[in-house]
Order: sequence, then C-alpha cells, then structure tokens
Amino acid sequence: MIIIMHPQVTEEEIQGVEKRLKSLGLGANISRGVERTIIGAIGDERQIHKETLQLLPGVEDVIRIVKPYKIVAREWHQADTVINVGGIPIGGKTIQVIGGPCSVETQAQMDLAAQGVAAAGCRLMRGGAFKPRTSPYTFQGKGIEGLEIFRQAAAKYRLPIVTELMDVRYLDIFLEQQVDVIQIGARNMQNFDLLKEVGRIHTPVVLKRGLCATISEWLMSAEYIAAGGNHNIILCERGVRSFEKAYRNMLDVTAIPILKKETHLPVIVDPSHAGGKASLVPALSKAAIAAGADGLLIEMHPNPCDAWCDADQALTPPELNQLMEELRLLAQAVGRDF
Amino acid sequence: MIIIMHPQVTEEEIQGVEKRLKSLGLGANISRGVERTIIGAIGDERQIHKETLQLLPGVEDVIRIVKPYKIVAREWHQADTVINVGGIPIGGKTIQVIGGPCSVETQAQMDLAAQGVAAAGCRLMRGGAFKPRTSPYTFQGKGIEGLEIFRQAAAKYRLPIVTELMDVRYLDIFLEQQVDVIQIGARNMQNFDLLKEVGRIHTPVVLKRGLCATISEWLMSAEYIAAGGNHNIILCERGVRSFEKAYRNMLDVTAIPILKKETHLPVIVDPSHAGGKASLVPALSKAAIAAGADGLLIEMHPNPCDAWCDADQALTPPELNQLMEELRLLAQAVGRDF
Amino acid sequence: MIIIMHPQVTEEEIQGVEKRLKSLGLGANISRGVERTIIGAIGDERQIHKETLQLLPGVEDVIRIVKPYKIVAREWHQADTVINVGGIPIGGKTIQVIGGPCSVETQAQMDLAAQGVAAAGCRLMRGGAFKPRTSPYTFQGKGIEGLEIFRQAAAKYRLPIVTELMDVRYLDIFLEQQVDVIQIGARNMQNFDLLKEVGRIHTPVVLKRGLCATISEWLMSAEYIAAGGNHNIILCERGVRSFEKAYRNMLDVTAIPILKKETHLPVIVDPSHAGGKASLVPALSKAAIAAGADGLLIEMHPNPCDAWCDADQALTPPELNQLMEELRLLAQAVGRDF
Amino acid sequence: MIIIMHPQVTEEEIQGVEKRLKSLGLGANISRGVERTIIGAIGDERQIHKETLQLLPGVEDVIRIVKPYKIVAREWHQADTVINVGGIPIGGKTIQVIGGPCSVETQAQMDLAAQGVAAAGCRLMRGGAFKPRTSPYTFQGKGIEGLEIFRQAAAKYRLPIVTELMDVRYLDIFLEQQVDVIQIGARNMQNFDLLKEVGRIHTPVVLKRGLCATISEWLMSAEYIAAGGNHNIILCERGVRSFEKAYRNMLDVTAIPILKKETHLPVIVDPSHAGGKASLVPALSKAAIAAGADGLLIEMHPNPCDAWCDADQALTPPELNQLMEELRLLAQAVGRDF
Repeated sequence: MIIIMHPQVTEEEIQGVEKRLKSLGLGANISRGVERTIIGAIGDERQIHKETLQLLPGVEDVIRIVKPYKIVAREWHQADTVINVGGIPIGGKTIQVIGGPCSVETQAQMDLAAQGVAAAGCRLMRGGAFKPRTSPYTFQGKGIEGLEIFRQAAAKYRLPIVTELMDVRYLDIFLEQQVDVIQIGARNMQNFDLLKEVGRIHTPVVLKRGLCATISEWLMSAEYIAAGGNHNIILCERGVRSFEKAYRNMLDVTAIPILKKETHLPVIVDPSHAGGKASLVPALSKAAIAAGADGLLIEMHPNPCDAWCDADQALTPPELNQLMEELRLLAQAVGRDF
Repeated sequence: MIIIMHPQVTEEEIQGVEKRLKSLGLGANISRGVERTIIGAIGDERQIHKETLQLLPGVEDVIRIVKPYKIVAREWHQADTVINVGGIPIGGKTIQVIGGPCSVETQAQMDLAAQGVAAAGCRLMRGGAFKPRTSPYTFQGKGIEGLEIFRQAAAKYRLPIVTELMDVRYLDIFLEQQVDVIQIGARNMQNFDLLKEVGRIHTPVVLKRGLCATISEWLMSAEYIAAGGNHNIILCERGVRSFEKAYRNMLDVTAIPILKKETHLPVIVDPSHAGGKASLVPALSKAAIAAGADGLLIEMHPNPCDAWCDADQALTPPELNQLMEELRLLAQAVGRDF
Repeated sequence: MIIIMHPQVTEEEIQGVEKRLKSLGLGANISRGVERTIIGAIGDERQIHKETLQLLPGVEDVIRIVKPYKIVAREWHQADTVINVGGIPIGGKTIQVIGGPCSVETQAQMDLAAQGVAAAGCRLMRGGAFKPRTSPYTFQGKGIEGLEIFRQAAAKYRLPIVTELMDVRYLDIFLEQQVDVIQIGARNMQNFDLLKEVGRIHTPVVLKRGLCATISEWLMSAEYIAAGGNHNIILCERGVRSFEKAYRNMLDVTAIPILKKETHLPVIVDPSHAGGKASLVPALSKAAIAAGADGLLIEMHPNPCDAWCDADQALTPPELNQLMEELRLLAQAVGRDF
Repeated sequence: MIIIMHPQVTEEEIQGVEKRLKSLGLGANISRGVERTIIGAIGDERQIHKETLQLLPGVEDVIRIVKPYKIVAREWHQADTVINVGGIPIGGKTIQVIGGPCSVETQAQMDLAAQGVAAAGCRLMRGGAFKPRTSPYTFQGKGIEGLEIFRQAAAKYRLPIVTELMDVRYLDIFLEQQVDVIQIGARNMQNFDLLKEVGRIHTPVVLKRGLCATISEWLMSAEYIAAGGNHNIILCERGVRSFEKAYRNMLDVTAIPILKKETHLPVIVDPSHAGGKASLVPALSKAAIAAGADGLLIEMHPNPCDAWCDADQALTPPELNQLMEELRLLAQAVGRDF
C-alpha cells in the first residue's frame, strides 16, 4: 500500500500515518519528494482497510499495489488449470464448444437439440431450465421439470450438461439431478451468497462476467468461490454494456489476453449473448478463439423461429455445423486442438 | 409493435408477417413508404416475443411502442404513491432523510449513531447487518446479531429501520425482527427470485438501481415486486458506473425527473455510495433535492476513522447536522416540506 | 512517480531503474515490501515519459502522483478566478445565466430572442452561427452573416455574446466581430490546434467537456489554452455519453464539486444539451446550481416549433422567465447572488 | 419516419400531425392500435427535422426508419470498395498490415523503422509528424520536417505512407509532400471542417473512430467526406472508452461484422492504440482478422525503450516479424490473401 500525502503535509501528519501503520502491524518507508511525500506500507496489505488510512490527516490518496485476489491469480499458480467434466477437459490445449438452446422447452425440442449439438461435434450441451428474465411477464423457464428433460436428452449422446442456477434454494436439486456444470449468470456475478454456496461443492462452475463488471471484480467473484474450496471455475466473457446501440453488448475481446495473464483459470466466450444476433455469432466466435479463448458457449435451436426466448440469437443446426468446420481450421492456425 | 421491412421486401414476405400476426391474435396495418414498408401490429403487444417476429423473412427491425411495465407506470396510476413507514410518509410533499452507518458494528456504535441520526432531524435510520462485499476477505456483516443490535438502538429514538436483504433464506428473520424497510442492493436489482419473494410480503422495499441498469430495466425490476402484490416500492438512485475515475460512481441526476414522469413511486438518492467520498455528499444531496428527489439515504458514522467499511464516505454527526440545516433551506426554496 | 516492481524482481533490475532515473536527473527511494519492491522517483516528474520507465525489465507498473496540469490547478492558485465579460463577472459569488437559441436563423428571430433573454434577467446571450452537425445533410449554420445578425440583436440589450468557434481559420473574423466569449464545443475539446490558437488571445473561452472526456483530460485541455497565456477559461459541463437511452447525455453533476476542488476556474452547466429535452431543463438547472455551479447555458427560442435545430430542447420565453424566478429562490437558499 | 402518439391523443392532434407532414411534402398513414395510435410518414425523411415533429401536441416519440447515411451505405452500393494506394489494394480479398512508429523522431530512427516494416512484409508504413497529445507539455511532433524525414525513409522501400492531419491549414503541405494516405485521428472524427476539406481532395483517408462514437455517428462522419466527392475512405476501429481499467481502450470487435454489413468501405483495426500495451497486440490483431477486418495498423519501433511517445505499445522488429508469420497462417484459415 502506498500513501500519498498532501503537498502541504506537516511532519506531525506523517508521523500520524506511521503510527497508524505500526498499530496495524505494518512498517513504513518514507520518501520525501519535491512535490509530494509518499509513504510505503510494508507488510500484508490484504488485511487493511484502505479507507481508514485515507481518512487520516494529511493523506491525499492511498494506492493498493497487491492484487486483491490470490487463489485464482496466476501469480500464485503458474500452470493453466484444466477442469475435467466427465472426462472432457476444459482449459489446456483443446478448445471446447458448448452448444444448445437458450431454454429447455419440450422433450422433443431438447432431443433434437442434443442430436444437433452432438452431430456438430460439440462435446458439452447448454440449456436453461431456470431463466433470468428482465420482465415478470415473459416465460420464466420450465424449472425442475426442465432439468429432467435436459438430462434425459443429453444422456443419449453422453453430453455433460451446463445449466444456470439462480437461487441457492435449488442447489440440492441441481446436485440430485447431477448437473455437470453449474452456470452463474451475469446478473448474479455479485450475488455473494450464491457464490459462497457453489464454493462449498465440487461441481465445476461457469462464472459469467457481470454486465459492467471490471475484470478485477470478476476475479474477486471467482475468488469467493475458490475461497470456499471449489477451484473448478471457468470464466465466461459475454459482452459488457456500452453506449453502442448497433448490437446488444460489447464483446470485450481484450479481456481474453488480460485474463490469460492474470489467472490460471480457463476462459470461454458466449458470442450469442454478447452480440444478441445469430448473424454476429460466427465473427465473434472466431475472434474469441483467435484471441486465445479456451472455448465457446453457443446458442443453437432446432427451430429458432419457434424458440420461446432469445430466438434471434440462436444458430440453426446447419449453421452450427458450418461454424464448427470453420472453427476447426482456425483452431489449427492458432495451434490449438479442436 | 412496429415491424420495419427490408428495402427489397417482397409481397410474399409482407403477407408472411401479416399471417404470423394474425396467428398471434393481432391485426396488421400496412404502410408502404418510399424507402421502406412498415407494418403496425394492432393488439396487446406485451404478450408477444419481439424476437420471433424479427426472424421472419423480410423483417429488418421490430420496435415496441408500449412500455414493458404497467403497475409501476404513471400512465396507469397518475397520483404520487406515498408509502407509510410507521407513520412516516415517503413520497408526497415531505422530504425524508434516512441516516446511519454503512454497517452495524457494535451496540455502542449503533446507540451513538441512532442518537446522532435523531438529533440531526432524520426520521428513519439505515444500517447494514448483511454486507455485500467485493472481496471474500473483508468484513461480511454481523448478520442476525446485527439486526438485533440495530433494532434496539433505533427503538430508543422511534426510528424505523432500513436494512439490506441479500439472501431469500433470511426473509423470515427480517420479518420476525420487524425490519421496517427492506433494502434490495444494487448488485441484487436483477436477482429475480429475491424480487419475487419481497413481492409476496407487504413490508416497504427500497430498490436500488443496478450498477449499470437502464431506467427501464430498473422499473421492470420494480414491476417484478409489484406483480407479486407489494406496491410499497421506493426507488433509490445511487450512481452508475462510468469511465470517469475522479470519484466512485456517476450520480445520474437526470434519472430523477425521468422517473417522476414515468412512475408514481417515490424516488430517493444515496449520495454517499454515489460519490464514495464524504466531501461530495453535501453537493450531491442538494442536487438531488433540487432535481425533485423525495428523500436521501446518507451515511453517518459516530467516528468514521474507526468504521469497519466505507469509512471515507460517512459524515460525522456534526457534518450531518450542518447538512440537514442546509437542506432545510433548500427544500423550502423548491416548495417541499422537510 | 512511483515504480512498482514485479514480485520476482532481481537486484539488477532494481539497479537498472535507479540508473535510468539518475540519467533523467531524478533521485530514487527504494522500499522493499513483503510482496513488492517499490521505487519512488524524486524530482519533477512532469518532464518524464512514464512509458519509457514502464518498459524497463522488472517493472510492473508506474504511477504518477502529481497532477498533469498546473496553471489551472487550485493547488497552484487558491482563489476563485472571476472573469470579467464586458463588466459582467463569471465565477465568484454571482450566478450567471446565459440564454439564447441553439442557432442564429434570422434577424427577426434573434431580435425576439434577445428581447426574451434580457426580459428574463439573463446577462449574457448565446447563439450559434457555425454549427457542428452530425449529418452533412442538415443545416450547418448561417456563418459570418449569422455573427453580424447576432451582434446586432444582442447590442440593443447590451448583452455580451457567446458563440462557437469550430475552425481556426475563422478566429480573425471572431475577433473583428468582437465576439465576447468564444465557445469551444464538446467535439473540439481535444482539437489541440484550435486550443492553442484561442490560447494566444485574451477573449474569454467557454470550454465544453468532451462527450466522454475525463475531468482530468478536460483540465488538460484547459491547460493547453492557459499555457498559451489566456487564463480566461470557463468550464462547461454538458453531459457525457452513457448506456442510458431515456435521455440524450448523462449530466455529470458530481463533476461540479470535483472541479471546484481541483481548479480555480469558473464552472457552468448546459442543461439543454445534457438532457436534450426542454422538460428536463428546470430540474437539471436547479441540480447544477444546488451542486455549486457558477452559471448555466440555457437554450431558449422565441418559437421552438419553428427552430432550425435542436427544437425540442429549447425553452419558450415564458418558460425561461419562470425558471429564472425559481432559480433566484434557489440561489438565495445556497447563499449565492443572482 | 414513424410518429407515436400519446395514449390520450385527440382526433385534432392526429390531424395536426397529418397537416404538418403534408406541409413538408409527406404523406401520412394512420394506424389506430389498442394502446397507441401511430402515424407513418411517407416520403423522403432525410430532409425533415425530427425535432419539429416531436414538439407537436399529442406526439410521444418520433422514430427514424431510414439510415441517415447514404453514399457510404451498403444498401446503396453492394460491392466492397477496394482503394488503390500506389498499386496496393486496401479492401477486397487481401489483408494489409500498415506498420511503423507512433511518431517520427529522427532520420536514423525512420530509416531503421522502414527497413523493419518492409522486412516483416508490411506493404504500407505509418508514422506521425503532427501528434495530438493530451498534455501541452509533452512532445508535439516534428511537424513539416517530420514529413520529409518520413517520405525519405519510406521511399527507399517503396512503402506508401500514412500520417495524421490535425489542422486544415496543413492540408496543402500534405498534398505537396505527397502523403499517400491521410489519417484523421479519433479526436477529430467530428471535426467537421477538417472532414469537409479532406472530402474535396482524392487522397485516401483513414478515418479513425472517435473515442466514444457510435458506429452510426462514425458512418455519418465518413458521409461528410464522401459527400464532398472523396470516396476513398478506410474506417479504422481503435477501441472505445469504457469503465474497464485493465487496459487503455476496449476494442470493439463486434463493430467489424456490423460495419461489413452496413457499409462497403474497407475496415481496418489499430490494436496498438486499442490495448495500449505491446503484449496485447498479437491477440487483438488476430481477433480483428478472424472477425473480418481488412487490415491492421500496428505500431513498431526499432527501439521501443527510446521511443518519444507511446513507448509501451510498440512492437520490436522481431516481434512484428513473428506476428506477421502468425497472421499469415490465420489469414489462410479464414480464406484471405495476405
């Protein structure tokens, strides 16, 4: 922690900060510059409330120099984490594409979807049984029944399933239904009670980035899960809010190389929710893989025109097939397995 | 709903849209312009998935013309809603200031805080027993014990209490502890399961705006609560995320007149979390009242230097006293009771 | 300047930084912490390229501690600057409202406008002869002829005129036409050649904030003008771009108290361009004054329905009259003259 | 244009709008829905001030349905525009990489840079002689002398040169110095007088996106140039401002497929200014090409540690070499020539 003092600081104020640091078990290194005096706090700053120092007389600003996250930081764990989901690795050399519809509708729809996902060469399947919807008047998901439908459809093709958990009270049912990967949605990225609960189990978690979460806040949310003991965390970039109105969210492709440097966790991208339009999915998928992502979460619906939600962002089965072909070539070009 | 067709639309495609609208129980008004044909859907558009129309051949864009919220809209309920909290009106002519510390720490701290809040002329008190914290390694709140401490401190001065609920599993305890106003924090504005639960009770709810929620999304979240039967909703603007680094959040003062036009619900402002610095609180408080807000949620701590969280945004008791004096003059100037 | 070293820094790398600082004429204070070593550079950091230090082996980050602006900083000039515009003070105790239409259209329109502005009690008048328009197909302003019309209309009521300069090639004409205050628009806030030119004269300048300029960048643009010798600078907040679609720009009311702390220059607000709607102007005007602004720039048109641009953000003369009455009361309540 | 009327609209108000449209030479199609009446304006809406309709009694909202730009729109010109710069095509099947330093420093530096750029396989060279700098106290560019140095260095390797024009008064010198491609920087994207001037000549123009310009505003700025007669416009995405602090600007990779649909103009990307760090350049370059960009503008400096500006975003010559190799493979995988 670095404490920057006001230009007209007094000797007494400097000693006040030094004393406070000592009472917190920290050493102080004082550097008297031409325009400012700065004080470096020596010791473990993660324990300290930055704000209490900021209030001391003579203090202009306090700057943290250590990252607030630890377990998820590459600084503390150099090798890439590879998560095993029913024998399928997420992270590492192989790129994984998780395909499937936005929401579980009927057994027939999910059977067709699973067939299409498997045929296209995806090794995991996504689908929502519980849906976070902006309006209380739109379809809220099939709930528990949806989980059963999903599991049954996916089992036939041995596809591990990825589905969203919105409410801590349903965690036991998710475990009973043997959900393979639990998704925490963008709106719940800072639902800390939910994060703590999925931190207590061992099921892999896809943690989506909040709508305008900084990368640092996102990693802190991952740290919440990791601090509970569950290190099987997959980060999923899905676009952030911006001023641009030509599409839904702005895919933050720069977050990919930043995350690869900051954390050892796998990073995947959801191009469907990012752009909000099926026509944007191929370009965004390719950009994500080219930038170093470990996988994709792509919406596909056997018949988008009849989808009950987010219809215009789902690919058709032939569109998914074609995209998978193109991604295979691209993955090779960037030295990844597919 | 207005459907804008592609410039090279065919007659067949136009008929396709007409047919689809008919199957949804809607009429169609076709307007053939020089550069575009547009189709107006006639009927109740709230039931319709905009996306399914967007996918039809020949469609360029689909625009909703009716607001997605209804119960909370001023269009459907002209008069200002006034919420009665233990005899104290929120909304209407009188401005209310809710004062108190960020978090409940000790009985002594809360007793002193309650005394200061009452002495300054505030009629309600705030304080957090459960705290949403970005880092898992910082103080997470006193929990249930904190609620008891808070209730006891406030009771002495007959101050109704406002405190945050983060987890549905604690709702019963909030009701047992007779929390007067339940706060839903910014991070939970779209925690729809939580919204549905507080929609089932009658306790007034302060609904904070999400970190980058649009006003429309915020009103939709209020509609979630209202749709359950609880119409005692107070909207609280607390700043949104922006590119500016000179302070914490950007207080959206324009949201106040917009909300006053769009909804009949009371609107309050939290200048403490918005700016993130005690020195900004007076200017932001005055701006909020001048712009038409119905109240303020202000952090005050008997001894900010010792506060366990957000220390540098809390006013001291004398600072709160002085601000209340200044606000009294201002309220008069804009024709409000104080 | 503070140089934060990588966790695994070597002694050689630390010496490399020290050496580099010495070659730049700076001293070095080395502080070895538990997790990081930090080096404080001692001397005048304004001369140094932060980037060249950032590239040295072992360096993780470089943080400036001194503000990049100097002449405009309150740190270097404590007292509020009061600018004299033809006998009318801008800055200091009195609040000034600058009224007038978006653009100069005809002599009749400007005569009526000047009459309305004076009658309402405004002491300066605004109007655009050169207009920055997003589309090349819309009205681009009356140009030089417009300046003459404007000057003539305002002279009758002895109103100093404020008008926008977009192109350095017109500066001489502005001086010939005795423009009292030159406005630099939001889109030109970082048109550095234009800033340098208005820095060479003594005419007061209203410098509008760029559409997404940080406060620090804005003050750097003011510093460009000041560095040339022209210290008569008035900062004008006019809303910034955000994700919100319910209005045009987000008025950054927090910028007002921040600027009052950071700079001695007067700060005014343009509520008309911020909100983009006449109905929002009263609330935003009051918020600005309550937050400490020194004045307002308000659009008024004798007949908004016939305005050639931005029609829906202009007040009518009676609306301006009423607002001025309300602002007078408000100004008193916050201890300002009006 | 679609005019949406208030819910309580009167027959008289509807007729008022109809009459106004007639006076503007437009027809009206009236559609009476359950909750709203909407009026479609029939005719060329580009001529009409949306705002004047918005002010009419009974009008709630006015929505444009035709894009405001025309010459640059793909709707009006289907085939991709390919711009010939001294025999080198920009746009079309081949990807072009424009390399070079941020700023022209010395003849020796530029000679080395040109050698490195040519050796790496780039076919055009970039370099700034006039520099837009946030601070008046930093290096402002070598000016005219810099242009001469640049031309001489590039000529040896027959590299057409790309350099920024900031001030209309230097246009003649740019023409005399035979600048091959004129760059309009992000800060000048809405410097309309500058756009008009480069619209009058035939030199190709790289138009960078403004710091928070929407894609629509950006295309309108291109339309300014095109409306003057110069259709040789290259759009350059260079990241936009966001809330994220982990890097400089947020590269808007989604803008690439959107632009490819909306306009026939070539689209290139500047990964160096976007990320602001050399280490991010490879990932962002690949993402851009994978998403469909027609080229890149990459900073390379023979010796980044000694660069006079933006040192930490420049690649070294070997880094550029390696990136070019990787991009070659990638270009093949997405079916482009390189």
